[in-house]
Amino acid sequence: MENQIIKVEGMTCGHCKSSVEGALNKLDGVDSATVSLEDNQVAVQYDASKVSNDALNDAIEDQGYDVVK
Amino acid sequence: MENQIIKVEGMTCGHCKSSVEGALNKLDGVDSATVSLEDNQVAVQYDASKVSNDALNDAIEDQGYDVVK
Repeated sequence: MENQIIKVEGMTCGHCKSSVEGALNKLDGVDSATVSLEDNQVAVQYDASKVSNDALNDAIEDQGYDVVK
Repeated sequence: MENQIIKVEGMTCGHCKSSVEGALNKLDGVDSATVSLEDNQVAVQYDASKVSNDALNDAIEDQGYDVVK
């Protein structure tokens, strides 16, 4: 299991938090995803053999937010 | 049909906009509700014989936002 902090722009409220966490948690291989609105980031715990960084980023961007790379 | 501008605090994103508009449009007597995130307000067109100001405010506050009175 790997841990990664992904910086994300545009998350402003509880709905944004739920959208991003929900999209990540839906991915096979993601164990947990926790958004910090204050820090503009999401902490993801995942199995790198099942889900790629690109898939994580895509899931976030599909919700309408920008991943800071 | 009456028109009213209600000032609301805490709406930050498209989800907030949808929540507030959805809650107001669900009320019997509300003809239209349009949030402006830039202006922190919602414009409501409604039938005052069917829905009260208090009911409009309550619907907004039930979504977790503060009405500025």
